[in-house]
Amino acid sequence: MADLAKFRALIDGVRIEDNAQIVKQKSRDFYWYSPVLKRQLDHVTADLIVTPRDEAEVIRILAAAYETGVPVTTRGTGTGNYGQAMPLSGGVVMALTELKQVGAIRPGSVTAGAGIVISELDAATRAHSGQELRLHPSTYRTATIGGFIAGGSGGIGSINWGGLRDLGNVIRARVVTCEASPRVLDITGDDLSKVMHAYGTNGVITEVEMPLTAAYDWIDVLVAFDDFMAAVRFGDDLGNEDGILVKEIAPIAAPVPYDYFLRHQKFLRRDQSVVVVMVAPHAMGAFETFAARRKAEIVYRSDRATAEELKSLPPAYELAWNHTTLRGLRVDPSITYLQVLYPFPTHVESVERMVGLFGDEVPAHCEFVRFDGRVTCFGLPIVRYTSEPRLDEIMRLHEANGCPIFNPHRYTLEEGGMKQSDPIQLAFKREADPKGLLNPGKMIAWEDPDFDFSSGKLFLFPGLAAAAAGA
Amino acid sequence: MADLAKFRALIDGVRIEDNAQIVKQKSRDFYWYSPVLKRQLDHVTADLIVTPRDEAEVIRILAAAYETGVPVTTRGTGTGNYGQAMPLSGGVVMALTELKQVGAIRPGSVTAGAGIVISELDAATRAHSGQELRLHPSTYRTATIGGFIAGGSGGIGSINWGGLRDLGNVIRARVVTCEASPRVLDITGDDLSKVMHAYGTNGVITEVEMPLTAAYDWIDVLVAFDDFMAAVRFGDDLGNEDGILVKEIAPIAAPVPYDYFLRHQKFLRRDQSVVVVMVAPHAMGAFETFAARRKAEIVYRSDRATAEELKSLPPAYELAWNHTTLRGLRVDPSITYLQVLYPFPTHVESVERMVGLFGDEVPAHCEFVRFDGRVTCFGLPIVRYTSEPRLDEIMRLHEANGCPIFNPHRYTLEEGGMKQSDPIQLAFKREADPKGLLNPGKMIAWEDPDFDFSSGKLFLFPGLAAAAAGA
Ligand SMILES: Cc1cc2nc3c(=O)[nH]c(=O)nc-3n(C[C@H](O)[C@H](O)[C@H](O)COP(=O)(O)OP(=O)(O)OC[C@H]3O[C@@H](n4cnc5c(N)ncnc54)[C@H](O)[C@@H]3O)c2cc1C
Ligand SMILES: Cc1cc2nc3c(=O)[nH]c(=O)nc-3n(C[C@H](O)[C@H](O)[C@H](O)COP(=O)(O)OP(=O)(O)OC[C@H]3O[C@@H](n4cnc5c(N)ncnc54)[C@H](O)[C@@H]3O)c2cc1C
Repeated sequence: MADLAKFRALIDGVRIEDNAQIVKQKSRDFYWYSPVLKRQLDHVTADLIVTPRDEAEVIRILAAAYETGVPVTTRGTGTGNYGQAMPLSGGVVMALTELKQVGAIRPGSVTAGAGIVISELDAATRAHSGQELRLHPSTYRTATIGGFIAGGSGGIGSINWGGLRDLGNVIRARVVTCEASPRVLDITGDDLSKVMHAYGTNGVITEVEMPLTAAYDWIDVLVAFDDFMAAVRFGDDLGNEDGILVKEIAPIAAPVPYDYFLRHQKFLRRDQSVVVVMVAPHAMGAFETFAARRKAEIVYRSDRATAEELKSLPPAYELAWNHTTLRGLRVDPSITYLQVLYPFPTHVESVERMVGLFGDEVPAHCEFVRFDGRVTCFGLPIVRYTSEPRLDEIMRLHEANGCPIFNPHRYTLEEGGMKQSDPIQLAFKREADPKGLLNPGKMIAWEDPDFDFSSGKLFLFPGLAAAAAGA
Repeated sequence: MADLAKFRALIDGVRIEDNAQIVKQKSRDFYWYSPVLKRQLDHVTADLIVTPRDEAEVIRILAAAYETGVPVTTRGTGTGNYGQAMPLSGGVVMALTELKQVGAIRPGSVTAGAGIVISELDAATRAHSGQELRLHPSTYRTATIGGFIAGGSGGIGSINWGGLRDLGNVIRARVVTCEASPRVLDITGDDLSKVMHAYGTNGVITEVEMPLTAAYDWIDVLVAFDDFMAAVRFGDDLGNEDGILVKEIAPIAAPVPYDYFLRHQKFLRRDQSVVVVMVAPHAMGAFETFAARRKAEIVYRSDRATAEELKSLPPAYELAWNHTTLRGLRVDPSITYLQVLYPFPTHVESVERMVGLFGDEVPAHCEFVRFDGRVTCFGLPIVRYTSEPRLDEIMRLHEANGCPIFNPHRYTLEEGGMKQSDPIQLAFKREADPKGLLNPGKMIAWEDPDFDFSSGKLFLFPGLAAAAAGA
């Protein structure tokens, strides 16, 4: 059994928080986005929060965990919405937010502590040499870079650079193992897939080296359309314009923009769909030409807004990706959403088919990205939630129509992702976390090697039931 | 008739060159690349070279030309290889090389005189703020930016940004018309297509505003393959890697690399095909991983070369695009080449089919680019030239197999391009050059409005015959 008292003694000097109220608050992420996860995980909490000051303290914490059998769930800032950072077996949540130093900034790359908030990292590289990260989640101003790599996938900038999974979008990750004497590994190249998007189940990332690109004062633009499919085609065509530099293209179907983007409501009619775009200042002329050719109506552009107005309006990236859903949830807590891939080259038709199938039950929200070199789109449609069976049915219909779902209503790596185990991540967990203490319950392949992914059965982490019983 | 004496008087004070030897030399471009153009244009020469110091002198020259009927052919540095800058009706060649001032450099853009050599422009923006042009021809160190816009199409960097024709790859061109009182027009947006790739037939570009991107110390890499199609697939896959930043991908079939890249010969075997790549330093790790996965052999990389070695080796971009042909011509003056588009998504199969059809008569050379948002390739294959009818037959067979040819053996805009007249450029010529004095003989639509492009007939500029008779 885990010996928490001994654990505390072993890490003497490390910042510890054990006030139950605060511990509970710091144990939670955005799992409540999903009505399914909310039901399953609402009771989950850690026993302690530890906040290491540096890598040496991370090593001490992991050695102590190994010795005492205390589970450790690593946490950036807990913005994950798949319940990634929920400590299913209790134990310790280790917050990495103090590992926030910015190291060497070179042309095209930066080294930084894993716990730095992404926008703060960008602020440093911008000030240093007019550079910024290639891509970031819409939680730019709250999420950590380590949490993005361990628990995220892509976002603003993916229209140019693809996703985190693409070779070259992370250069190096420095990882501490959970062993008697934790090892510190500098992981590069192919090996990065061992720890990227592994929910911290097989090592703790303390430092990252990320590629940079030129930073610009991106202009936020809203383009309005009477017809949603016209908005989608506009986005697709824009994504395929090789010379027009944009960082974000998101068509969102009416009435979502009007109903949920309250501060931008004044620019819109309720029956208008929009495309949210971020355009480089030097591409604005070309963008205007592109829009004029299509007689598209630019209803808002931040470079024409007053300073007053800008203060009251959230940035465009906080209308997009999961922030669309967040804004929806604030207005109507009963909604939820999905994550879909509409594969190239039939993505536009697929979107149209799904819109035809579900209508206003599943208002569409697309995010154009590069995917294996082609411009295609993900979907993060809003779902007007009625019941779990209906939600499952909606997902089933997507998949039956050739649109794979990344199920945001599952807390395991496999069920929220490719629905198959990842032998590379599993093998690395055997090496780096032999006692299975890191973020227990998230990797099915570890917990239940015989689990049959084709069964359609839901995985239930036994430890979770135990925790629930104890709660 | 043109009154050259009066023209000279009118432009008194402008730098004039009339030494026949020098005039002849400064009237020529790289038309001799093509055995066909060499036969047709070898006798062509101007009467005078004028070299304006600034836009005011350009205006004076064009006003004088209008008044006296003297033809004016604008010239950057005469590196065009479609005979674009050959003064078919004699008259004046106006060299823009003194218009080379660098103006405002902003994040993402630069303003410069049209006559600046491209690498000098890049040197200025690099020194200023670590920025460089998005794309440049392989004649980076010799060609002017104005000549590129008026007579070129794409090159190094097109794998990321497409071609010059793409919206956003030129921001603004300042153009002087040839009228009694020449107008100075700042042309942006859709209007840019009036003067881009118009061979200077409808206005003289004096200043340009170009988009910039982040500059890197690109690493030159040669990857060798026993099988050319493996090289092509490597290039295609690399081009579709969204996270690996490269600036150039050119598969070139054996024995071209060994036979023609004399200074790189020591790295190669004669039966090896190569892919010429330029990789960003911070992408080199990802590139190595990518290459290792495919067991591809990196035979040369500039970041591992000694300073000594680097001095003796031309940069990778001078192995690519038309420089492949140039290196071939130096070894074997009997060869020539073609420009082909292999359209997406069947480009790899098309290359394979053409290789199968022609074998070593047409050694393949591909250039991967973004084209309407997709990664595909152009071809600049070497042709072991035997006769004009056979050359025509080779082109016909390409087109019959769905691979359009941009015929580099024709000096007119239409025949070297889309084989149809461009009504926008023609309309603008009517406005901007009502007497038809700018680069006569290059726009068929102006010279012979009834010319039937579907006839397959060769256009013969009557003025050229007259000049030949006079020669
Ligand atoms: C409104 C909203 C919008 C979002 N938009 C996006 C988006 O656009 N794109 C996207 O990809 N995601 C998005 N997300 C999900 C999430 O915000 C991001 O993935 C974010 O980057 C997570 O960072 P974090 O610091 O909050 O990580 P956390 O939530 O704290 O952790 C995420 C996972 O990574 C693990 N982890 C954290 N740090 C480390 C570390 N240093 N070493 C090892 N494991 C670690 C945790 O254990 C957990 O499993 C969004 C979420 C919300 C709520
Ligand atoms: C070895 C070699 C490699 C090449 N590689 C490439 C390549 O990679 N990509 C590519 O696109 N091309 C390539 N080319 C063609 C050519 O070099 C480029 O297009 C180059 O940019 C032309 O610039 P220039 O200054 O030499 O123009 P010039 O040859 O002097 O002129 C080109 C055309 O533009 C007109 N012109 C020039 N300046 C102006 C102006 N200011 N206003 C109006 N009209 C003007 C001229 O009248 C002429 O019709 C290559 C040629 C060679 C010989």
